Formats: sequence, C-alpha cells, structure tokens
Amino acid sequence: MPQLVLIRHGQSQWNLENRFTGWWDVDVTEKGAAEARAAGVLMREKGLDFDQCFTSLQTRAIKTLNLALEEMQRLWLPVEKDYRLNERHYGGLTGLNKQETRDKHGDEQVHIWRRSFDTPPPPMEAGSQYDLSADRRYAGISVPASESLKNTIERVLPYWEARIAPELKAGKRILISAHGNSLRALVKHLSGISDNDITGLEIPTGQPIVYDLDDDLNERERYYLSER
Amino acid sequence: MPQLVLIRHGQSQWNLENRFTGWWDVDVTEKGAAEARAAGVLMREKGLDFDQCFTSLQTRAIKTLNLALEEMQRLWLPVEKDYRLNERHYGGLTGLNKQETRDKHGDEQVHIWRRSFDTPPPPMEAGSQYDLSADRRYAGISVPASESLKNTIERVLPYWEARIAPELKAGKRILISAHGNSLRALVKHLSGISDNDITGLEIPTGQPIVYDLDDDLNERERYYLSER
Repeated sequence: MPQLVLIRHGQSQWNLENRFTGWWDVDVTEKGAAEARAAGVLMREKGLDFDQCFTSLQTRAIKTLNLALEEMQRLWLPVEKDYRLNERHYGGLTGLNKQETRDKHGDEQVHIWRRSFDTPPPPMEAGSQYDLSADRRYAGISVPASESLKNTIERVLPYWEARIAPELKAGKRILISAHGNSLRALVKHLSGISDNDITGLEIPTGQPIVYDLDDDLNERERYYLSER
Repeated sequence: MPQLVLIRHGQSQWNLENRFTGWWDVDVTEKGAAEARAAGVLMREKGLDFDQCFTSLQTRAIKTLNLALEEMQRLWLPVEKDYRLNERHYGGLTGLNKQETRDKHGDEQVHIWRRSFDTPPPPMEAGSQYDLSADRRYAGISVPASESLKNTIERVLPYWEARIAPELKAGKRILISAHGNSLRALVKHLSGISDNDITGLEIPTGQPIVYDLDDDLNERERYYLSER
C-alpha cells in the first residue's frame, strides 16, 4: 500500500509577523525548528520510514525536512528539491502584513485574495526588493508575477504526476516537506476536495499528515500522525 | 575554468575519542558543527558559489554540508549522496581506540594498517555491533568487510568519473563534503600523488580545499581557502 507523508514547514519569521511570504525565502523561527525536530521524533516513534523525500527550493521547507530527518537518523535519504513545490507566489502582497494589506487594498479585496480559488493578487512591482525573477535559484524557469491557488495547483500537479506519483507506484515511501498552498494542491488532488472548500482548508505547521493510498493513488485514509 | 572544493566533515565524536570510525555513523561534535558553519561563512565571504554538491551516506558529512550550505544561503542546491564517497571501511578495527588497537594487535601491526597503501585491516567480525551489512542504507550494495586505502580509491574513482567529472566538464561548480580517505582518493588522483605519499597526507577537518582545474580536470592549483 503506497504511503505518503506531507509536512508543512515549521513556523517562519513571517508566519509569526503575519506577513505574506510566498516565494520570499524566510527562515524558520526557533519555534519552527523545534516543530520540525518534534515531527521527526514523532515519525520515528510511530515507526514511519521513507525511501525518498521531496521539498521546495525554499529554506524553511528544506530546513524542516533536514531537522526531521536528522531526528529520524535518515539524513542519508535522497532528497529532490524543485521550485514546483514552492509556496504560492503572492505577487505585490509579498512582505505586507495583514494591517498594511488592509490599509493599502481594503478589507473586502483582501478577503477575496485570501479566499478566492482563482483570483491572483496584484503582480510583483518592477524593482521591488522582493522580486526574485533574477535569482540564480530560479534560472531557466519563469518566475510568476503572482499566483492564485489555482495557478499554484497548475504547477504542483504536473510535478506530482511526473516525479512523485511514479515513485509511490514503484513502492517507495515518500515524505514531502513543503508549504501551505503547495500542500493544499496535493490534498485537493488526493482527497477530491472542491475548489470552494480547498481555500478554507488550514494545514498546520510541523504536523505530519499521513496518506494511506490505494494503488491508483486515491485516498484510503488521511490523518494527522499526532492523533494516532 | 572548472572549480572544485573539497571539505572533510567537522570533528566527530570518535575523532575526539581517537577511535576507528570508518562506515560507522558517528555524528559531529559541537566543535565539528561549528567548524562546518565556519567553513560556510568562509566560502560565502570569499565569494565561492556552487551549482551541485556531492556527499556520502554518512551523517557527519551530510550535516557538515548542510550547515555550510545554510551559512551560504544555498540549502536549495542539489545534493547527491552516494556510499562511494563514504570513509574507508576499517573492518575489525571499527570502534577501537588507539590504545585498544595497540593492546589487541601490537604497535607494529597498527603502524602498518595506518600507513600501508594496500593492506586492509582485519575483516569485520560476524555478529559485531558495528556490522552494517544489513543496514537498509546499503541495500543492494556489497558492504566491504574491510578496506585498504587502495580499496577505497577503487570505489571512489569510478564514482568520480561517472558522476562528478562530467558535471565539472559541463561547467558546474562542485562542492564535495566527505571523509579523510575518500578525499585522499580524490586528491591523489587530481594532484598525482604517489601510493607511498598519499597515506601520509593529512586532510584537516572543516577546511575547504580549493582546486582550480584545467579542462582535462588536472590540478592547476590547490590551496586551503583559509590561506587566501
């Protein structure tokens, strides 16, 4: 039975400050690092093990993975890193906290961006300090100006199909360390959640989510490891 | 000009205790972790950068790499891990400290094992607590019973030729985090050091060694980064 575990990175500095982060490369806090280590301890204690790991190109997800793997004595596992598991790109909202966003754009518009499935935020402004389109990390890929959740899903799922699903079908046990919205993309796909419902699904930081899948990689069961 | 940097893992607990370690998976000490971070800071300050990293399947080398990459803000770089970069396998000496080894085998024999190019130590004893031949990490590979430096070189160089040299020839800047003897294998090859001389070449922990190479991957210059 194919087994998959998803984990959202531990608390980042901008989670703490309630700022839109997206592709900006913010580190985990001490609390976030502790969450990652605790996730590793939990997985070890519950007897989970893996053959292959996947993560994004963002420090907070990679570090969460490394800290968890260290607790599991599994730093030697292969890890593939790909931008297609990155967080949703928040465009011109990147760096703004909740209050600044409301002041600049109004409550109603902010609510739409947060909860709409297919409305992207305003594009990243040219010359913004948060513009990553020239970052060497993303050489050869087209950095989005902003993304709706729908856009995010449209880049996550082809990666899932191309790189992750074949490994699961080959019998490998997979751990993915990623972000709120790239994980929403996977949960929506695997659990058949509607466009309307997925925008309200909260994925907690540092909590391993276990999927038992059937041979066609549909959900048989999904649960938080901490609840078993 | 192809550029390659080699780094031996930071001090491990068994480096500190003067015990033969080999393939046994001993962690770095606090000092070793600090050495790794300092290596990352040094590489960043000297303006070094990389496209691809390679390391062994052993925690102390992987952690050294991760800590250095974190300081360089390069955790997102691709990392390939392979047992062929592992430390020399010390067979039946694994776990013994210098005094225990002398008591058990005599000074002269210990000197031969330490300094001979092609004499392997006694084989790992069946049922030893240090026997890793059933470790999942090494599934599908034939774990040696013990290795001479020559044996170590004979597994490192095919990996170099197959996986690392082609990346250098393709223009990628490469960082390798590995072990005293797997790095001796590379230094012997790249710098044309004799069988006799290589056994006496000490590679310090946590010190980035920079190779400027010609297009055929022969040494043009080799230096400790800390000395520039």
